[in-house]
Amino acid sequence: MNAWVFTLGNEVVHGRVLNTNAAYIGRRLTLLGFNVLGNISLIDDVNLISEVLRYVLSLKPRLIVTTGGLGPTYDDRTLEAIAKALDRKLVLNQAALAMIKSKYDSIGLPLTNERVKMALMPEDGVPIHNPIGTAPGCFITVGETLIFSLPGVPQEMEAMWESYVEPKLKSLGVSKALVETTFTVVGIPESTAAKAVVEVLKDYPSAYVKTHPKGYELGKPVLDVYILVSDADESKAAEVLDNIVAELKQKLRELGGMIP
Amino acid sequence: MNAWVFTLGNEVVHGRVLNTNAAYIGRRLTLLGFNVLGNISLIDDVNLISEVLRYVLSLKPRLIVTTGGLGPTYDDRTLEAIAKALDRKLVLNQAALAMIKSKYDSIGLPLTNERVKMALMPEDGVPIHNPIGTAPGCFITVGETLIFSLPGVPQEMEAMWESYVEPKLKSLGVSKALVETTFTVVGIPESTAAKAVVEVLKDYPSAYVKTHPKGYELGKPVLDVYILVSDADESKAAEVLDNIVAELKQKLRELGGMIP
Repeated sequence: MNAWVFTLGNEVVHGRVLNTNAAYIGRRLTLLGFNVLGNISLIDDVNLISEVLRYVLSLKPRLIVTTGGLGPTYDDRTLEAIAKALDRKLVLNQAALAMIKSKYDSIGLPLTNERVKMALMPEDGVPIHNPIGTAPGCFITVGETLIFSLPGVPQEMEAMWESYVEPKLKSLGVSKALVETTFTVVGIPESTAAKAVVEVLKDYPSAYVKTHPKGYELGKPVLDVYILVSDADESKAAEVLDNIVAELKQKLRELGGMIP
Repeated sequence: MNAWVFTLGNEVVHGRVLNTNAAYIGRRLTLLGFNVLGNISLIDDVNLISEVLRYVLSLKPRLIVTTGGLGPTYDDRTLEAIAKALDRKLVLNQAALAMIKSKYDSIGLPLTNERVKMALMPEDGVPIHNPIGTAPGCFITVGETLIFSLPGVPQEMEAMWESYVEPKLKSLGVSKALVETTFTVVGIPESTAAKAVVEVLKDYPSAYVKTHPKGYELGKPVLDVYILVSDADESKAAEVLDNIVAELKQKLRELGGMIP
């Protein structure tokens, strides 16, 4: 179940905002059991986005999630880029238009060209209701790959994730269980801990361990140790996690580490 | 002067940390006049990283900056992936080894296999001194493309950026000037402002304008308007910026916007 995330927009690539959308989606997909391979941020350039999308589609992922570029402005062209990457027509989606019209009706504003533009979607795209803002999202199936396009405004994206994307993904029967934990070890540098991690991991192919140096306290190195285990069976995953934690703590203590 | 940024590491892709490195580097490169096209975060997988790197290298960028994957642990394999993408050997770099040895000597620790590993670099790589941590960075030239590999720990990456990367890039004669500004308009939605932005931009191909909806105050929509102008000549860029701001404010006021 490989997945890729695209976070689109000049403001992200040029560092004017922190990419909180990438972290949110990466975290949610990981907890759903997806193997998230990467996150790609690109500037608002139709040709660039469609080329890179085409490359990622060639890797045959199960899932692609995009954020950004769905709004009414001239540089919001994500759905045009997706249509191009899929060799599909960009068409006026009547269901999307109805969503947009009802939104502007409710605040007494007319449908201008800029507003109608938000209803242009790749052929066979399914609009996703935006409960907060105006631009609908879009859900597209292409072969074995599912594509969800969501707005870039974090509150809108998160609301649509919870009301539409996650229920949809769960209905696909993603069932892998993930368990994780973190502990802190004081007194040994990361390069010393590395040896213990490799030794313990030899026996646990489904586990992932990462050490994060956190600087020094009273002259001693502080290291966070993060462990993630996935398995089809949740109780099996939890058991493996417990074993790894016990073995790792023992080895780290033997190397001089203190675990508070 | 196209540039790409790679921020490597499971913790970024899986959303366990916010990608502050991408924002830092994207911002610094933009201010240096580079056209940053994208930021790519990938999990710690040698084959995946080398494949995607190869794809980006085929786009012939002037610059690639990577962060992450230089440390002593089993999953720190960025330089191996770069060597693979470039079809170069991974060799023990004696200058890098000397940097690492002097660091561990100073804290009275021996050179283990995990520590020596940080001196393995693609052939013809130039090590970059790490003034804070242990893992050296690496600078590689391949055809017209410059590659800088830096550690993922933000304080280390930023220290090496300031002491090595930015001086190096400036010595290449990057001279494009960038000027930017932001103002706020109250009382008109983004979809109304969109029309004014398109009209004004028609006359200014080197400018970039982005509107960011900031929610509502006293029932009225609040919109931040960001404008960036680049030009070889700084005073020319500043003049263009002033003109755009004046024209845009006038049009937005005509559409009912209030600019405090």
